[in-house]
Amino acid sequence: MTQAQPTAKIRPVILSGGAGTRLWPLSTAARPKQFLDLVGDGSLLRQTFERMADPVLFSAPTVICGPGHVEAVEEIAATAGTVARLIVEPAARNTAAAIALAALTAEAPDELLLVLPSDHHIAAPDRFRATVDAARAGAEAGLIVTFGMKPTRIETGFGYIEAGEPLTGAVRRAIRFVEKPDAARAAEMTASGNYLWNGGIFFASAATLIAAFEAHAPAVIAAVRTSLKASDTPDPAAFATVPALAFDHAVMEKSDRVGVIPSDFGWSDVGSWLAAFEHAPRDEADNAVDPGSVVIDGHGNLVRSTGPRIVALGVNGLMLLATDEVILVAPLADAQRVREAHAWFTTPK
Amino acid sequence: MTQAQPTAKIRPVILSGGAGTRLWPLSTAARPKQFLDLVGDGSLLRQTFERMADPVLFSAPTVICGPGHVEAVEEIAATAGTVARLIVEPAARNTAAAIALAALTAEAPDELLLVLPSDHHIAAPDRFRATVDAARAGAEAGLIVTFGMKPTRIETGFGYIEAGEPLTGAVRRAIRFVEKPDAARAAEMTASGNYLWNGGIFFASAATLIAAFEAHAPAVIAAVRTSLKASDTPDPAAFATVPALAFDHAVMEKSDRVGVIPSDFGWSDVGSWLAAFEHAPRDEADNAVDPGSVVIDGHGNLVRSTGPRIVALGVNGLMLLATDEVILVAPLADAQRVREAHAWFTTPK
Repeated sequence: MTQAQPTAKIRPVILSGGAGTRLWPLSTAARPKQFLDLVGDGSLLRQTFERMADPVLFSAPTVICGPGHVEAVEEIAATAGTVARLIVEPAARNTAAAIALAALTAEAPDELLLVLPSDHHIAAPDRFRATVDAARAGAEAGLIVTFGMKPTRIETGFGYIEAGEPLTGAVRRAIRFVEKPDAARAAEMTASGNYLWNGGIFFASAATLIAAFEAHAPAVIAAVRTSLKASDTPDPAAFATVPALAFDHAVMEKSDRVGVIPSDFGWSDVGSWLAAFEHAPRDEADNAVDPGSVVIDGHGNLVRSTGPRIVALGVNGLMLLATDEVILVAPLADAQRVREAHAWFTTPK
Repeated sequence: MTQAQPTAKIRPVILSGGAGTRLWPLSTAARPKQFLDLVGDGSLLRQTFERMADPVLFSAPTVICGPGHVEAVEEIAATAGTVARLIVEPAARNTAAAIALAALTAEAPDELLLVLPSDHHIAAPDRFRATVDAARAGAEAGLIVTFGMKPTRIETGFGYIEAGEPLTGAVRRAIRFVEKPDAARAAEMTASGNYLWNGGIFFASAATLIAAFEAHAPAVIAAVRTSLKASDTPDPAAFATVPALAFDHAVMEKSDRVGVIPSDFGWSDVGSWLAAFEHAPRDEADNAVDPGSVVIDGHGNLVRSTGPRIVALGVNGLMLLATDEVILVAPLADAQRVREAHAWFTTPK
């Protein structure tokens, strides 16, 4: 897939923290999105492992996760045939802390780290690996390279990156990070052709990352370093003092050594049930249905259950989502309203 | 409600056998329809007990049930404040056997027995009791009186009874029983004004019933009598030899001592989820929802669960039915197709 070359292998760093409610009820704090088989063919974490199973390009991945998820990560790694190194965060302190942990525990200062979420979907893994390979020169040149997804629609749910002049090969300067825009601004940026979606993937050497932390988030790197004094496992009391900052805010938006590589490998953050439906394999009636459940005489439904089996008859365009505790039924078009349903469910009556 | 009079009390005989699949998945063989809170305000059996809780008109009820349901019946009787006598059938042998059991174990030959299903809904219990009182003279005169519901729509799902000349008070001769008709015949019978729905309720003295069995179903009464030789509890081996016949076919259609009283007390056999919805209390958005579940921004839904809680958002006219094992989602308009869903679920894959 990638050409064999005498360059060093890239270390994947998989961030497996966080727990949102956008994919409730299947996604919960105890069992967040990366552990779910949302788009078919195994959990998103398993697919992430499999995407990295290229022994020419990548070395064994490092996974950063919380203490409650060690067993799940190890089980999925085993299923994927991956020997992963786990770094267990005593508490979640956001992405800056996690990336600092990875940089400070790297094998060597010049080890290249590819930091990426555990719960995204990539439809074209070959193109993903080719893009990583194309970004290598930028990372080796001391840049922090981000992956900027070419917009395929006007989207207000993502951050954007403005791409400037070429820096190294296909890597261009990242001029500016734009937070989730309103619809008018999103349309404008999409039309300009210079703005790309921020996919939350970062590629740099350990030394580059550490230097960037020292320059822009010294409190983070100092506290993480203190937490690692005794061993490679962070000390809970010390780690609890790490400022909880997003890496984008703490480092990327402040550094002028940031590049972006325009990317087109079918990326999705699977940020809603509608996205999960769109990326899932579907049957001839356009239903995405778990084994054990069924749709009779209906089309365009998403049917997922970790609890009772689901029998849907004569319904269209619905999401039917079940656990042993709760069942959510709504039109897929209302996928953004899951928070309302979750809020109702979790509010004491 | 009914006037106090020196006449003997009527013994309710509640048939709590049988287990259909029309109200699957909540109704199962282990937990049939009469044990479910289908239309609000307690199970249908509890409502049946409460309907009979008139100490002037009725004596304590006899319940005929299977061995697997004794506990459920006793629990519901206790909740309703009813002291019921249970006759436990070692096996289900259809309604003729059950009614023969009741007749042979009556307190006296002239005891009046009001035999009725445990799983029907009656919207106007006062009118029900008044109709029973009005039918008493017919039962005392040696008739088997049935209750014929005035048709409120053209219905192909019920049997019909043709009512003839007056016999005793409001009781008319039952000229003929008609099996479930096609739509044309149903329309014709409904237009004639002389046909009534067969509600499966029978009212007669024990002696009248026994004589009718002797005349028209001697094998049934003989086998049941044999099963009762040793005690009031039928012997399993002997009871297993009772021919399994419906009382309607075995006796009612053959006897010429059968009357029918035109009735209008809001009867329903709750024979489908649509019927359950129509008779259930509904909120201001026309939803019938179990406590613990919710409909947000939707109307006309039936939401019932004995398993996970249900959160429905933005859906209309659906039935959402759940147990710990299975969830059925379908338009209420497709309530008749529940058998298809049940068949899919129970077919080994």
